[in-house]
Amino acid sequence: MDLQGMKERAALRAADELVTSGMRLGLGTGSTAVFVVRRVGALLAEGRLKNIRVFATSFQTELECERLNIPHYSLNSPELGGGLDLTIDGADEVDPENRAVKGGGGALLIEKLAAYNSGRFAIVADESKLAPRLAVRFPLPVEVIPEARLSVSRALEKLGAELTLREALRKAGPVITEHGNLLLDIRFREPEEPEELEERINRIPGVVENGLFAGPGGARIRPRIYIGRGDGAVETRD
Amino acid sequence: MDLQGMKERAALRAADELVTSGMRLGLGTGSTAVFVVRRVGALLAEGRLKNIRVFATSFQTELECERLNIPHYSLNSPELGGGLDLTIDGADEVDPENRAVKGGGGALLIEKLAAYNSGRFAIVADESKLAPRLAVRFPLPVEVIPEARLSVSRALEKLGAELTLREALRKAGPVITEHGNLLLDIRFREPEEPEELEERINRIPGVVENGLFAGPGGARIRPRIYIGRGDGAVETRD
Repeated sequence: MDLQGMKERAALRAADELVTSGMRLGLGTGSTAVFVVRRVGALLAEGRLKNIRVFATSFQTELECERLNIPHYSLNSPELGGGLDLTIDGADEVDPENRAVKGGGGALLIEKLAAYNSGRFAIVADESKLAPRLAVRFPLPVEVIPEARLSVSRALEKLGAELTLREALRKAGPVITEHGNLLLDIRFREPEEPEELEERINRIPGVVENGLFAGPGGARIRPRIYIGRGDGAVETRD
Repeated sequence: MDLQGMKERAALRAADELVTSGMRLGLGTGSTAVFVVRRVGALLAEGRLKNIRVFATSFQTELECERLNIPHYSLNSPELGGGLDLTIDGADEVDPENRAVKGGGGALLIEKLAAYNSGRFAIVADESKLAPRLAVRFPLPVEVIPEARLSVSRALEKLGAELTLREALRKAGPVITEHGNLLLDIRFREPEEPEELEERINRIPGVVENGLFAGPGGARIRPRIYIGRGDGAVETRD
């Protein structure tokens, strides 16, 4: 089975097992999460799900919701009231302790906001996303205000990171996030302790958020992981 | 002596004692910091200072620099290279351990960026800013992305804060910061431990920065404080 197939199977399994009528639902961003959005759209269209109020974590997800007639709301709206029952999202890397790196799609800021404010959190991924250690192979994105590009780069290098400023395609120069910021993609030769790294990076003035989902202030919701495997099976892990 | 006089005396003393030719200089924001900007402008105009490269912490400061022909640069520019020799700024409150609350002018994000990346840091204030404990009398501003207004409000209330969304004048609705965010002004009945509070608030997803200058990641530069007193004297404190 190819990667697309694995992603889709994991997404379908998670949506079918976890999403129920009446939920306030956070929907993630990226090539795996989009299969969850489409599944939710199909279940709504068939009438098997009702009264779902969605919080979309990016413009991509918002547009997909609109295409599928899925009602989506501001997290501040009375419909959501600042909280969600469940968020399902993809990930770029997941380690054996279910900690993740996210933000390949550049939506880490709102993805973390959704996950942190959800009663339950699930990650859907294909097996290529499993990593023994985070931010060694796949880079960890750090969202930075433009004024702090150079000073934050220095501070990250002091932590031992190698970094590149994420360059845009179809736009000259760097990627601009949906909050007007830059992305530094960082990588470590020696693996770092994820909980500590997540906090240490966010302490640097000018850093808005980073893509580690290890434990924001000890308040992390342990995600359930759905992994699509090459043999067509979906493994779940709590 | 009135408050304006006290502010001006503190600012002049700090500028005259600390600013020397050739410096990369961070200039703060607000009604006291503006006296520092003006003093630097005057010293440059008189030729008593030369080759000052300024980083302005807000539009207010930028405009004042332009009015006074003070050359200012991006922190990312080759002229500054991501670092500063000295930053002089005001504060809303200073406690006996020289920890401060800033952000009454809404510029806390860039003010913290400047202070954190400066070899030396000085705060200028009139004596009315001295407080036995922080964020009890004067509110502590928390800069929040718009999507997180309600969820961050909840999280701050759980920490024991009373809060108000800062309302704009000459614009309908809330103040929008220079980075497109909202400001929650929070206050505590019981004083909190400032270092811990600063970190705990910044850990909440959706918080961009808060106005406590107690110790970003233990890396705080201890400021020198210049306090303008009612008798006309300026007290300095390290």
